[in-house]
Amino acid sequence: MTAEDARRRFSEARVARLATVDAHGQPHLVPIVFAVAGETIYSVVDAKPKRTTELRRLQNVRSNPRVSVLVDHYDDNDWDALWWARADGTARVLGLDESEAGGAVQLLARRYPQQRPQGPVLAIDVERWSGWAARAPE
Amino acid sequence: MTAEDARRRFSEARVARLATVDAHGQPHLVPIVFAVAGETIYSVVDAKPKRTTELRRLQNVRSNPRVSVLVDHYDDNDWDALWWARADGTARVLGLDESEAGGAVQLLARRYPQQRPQGPVLAIDVERWSGWAARAPE
Repeated sequence: MTAEDARRRFSEARVARLATVDAHGQPHLVPIVFAVAGETIYSVVDAKPKRTTELRRLQNVRSNPRVSVLVDHYDDNDWDALWWARADGTARVLGLDESEAGGAVQLLARRYPQQRPQGPVLAIDVERWSGWAARAPE
Repeated sequence: MTAEDARRRFSEARVARLATVDAHGQPHLVPIVFAVAGETIYSVVDAKPKRTTELRRLQNVRSNPRVSVLVDHYDDNDWDALWWARADGTARVLGLDESEAGGAVQLLARRYPQQRPQGPVLAIDVERWSGWAARAPE
């Protein structure tokens, strides 16, 4: 799969999974909703009740900004339809008062009217889009 | 979500995402099919064509056995139905000639008749099951 195809499939997906790593090399994995703008992926912590440990993603990127984000399609009845697309890059934590964060929240609100952003915003600068598909695109 | 509920939801899912970390703290993320036996998650590299870099998961666990594996449910039309379940633990790489690997391949073949295992087998010893659900289980 080309980088451009991976970027397109990724951008159109509704949910992704974010992997971050703590200072001791322990990975942490959570599902995220997101929006892609250019070469940056935005996500925001929303108002759903969370335990403090679930903000580990933010602690992690502050000590190790390397992240990987994955979108995939699975179909039990048709393994020829399987594909995935991945973004590897570095993450920044933005306060909701930053102008870049304001734009991200607007983008996310358009994609997910049901989300109630509470912040902060995670901005992931993508260095590499990659992917795999069982079947070549039509 | 209780650990037991997380384990149950995880075990019933058909696809998960595996996060591994290389020696430099770079995370790597791929979708996997899997089977759970007791407190161990098994997956196997199958016969689909792969580039060598996609076996990075195996290189990574050899240098850093800490892994995280995530299952999640997303529904655009019902955010009250969202949930995820996660397994954190340590991974071992088994050759297909090991007896534990043989059992894993049989388990996987029962869950996924369409898979053609080629090996090696990844065995993940789970230390912690956790999860989150928007709605309490009925």
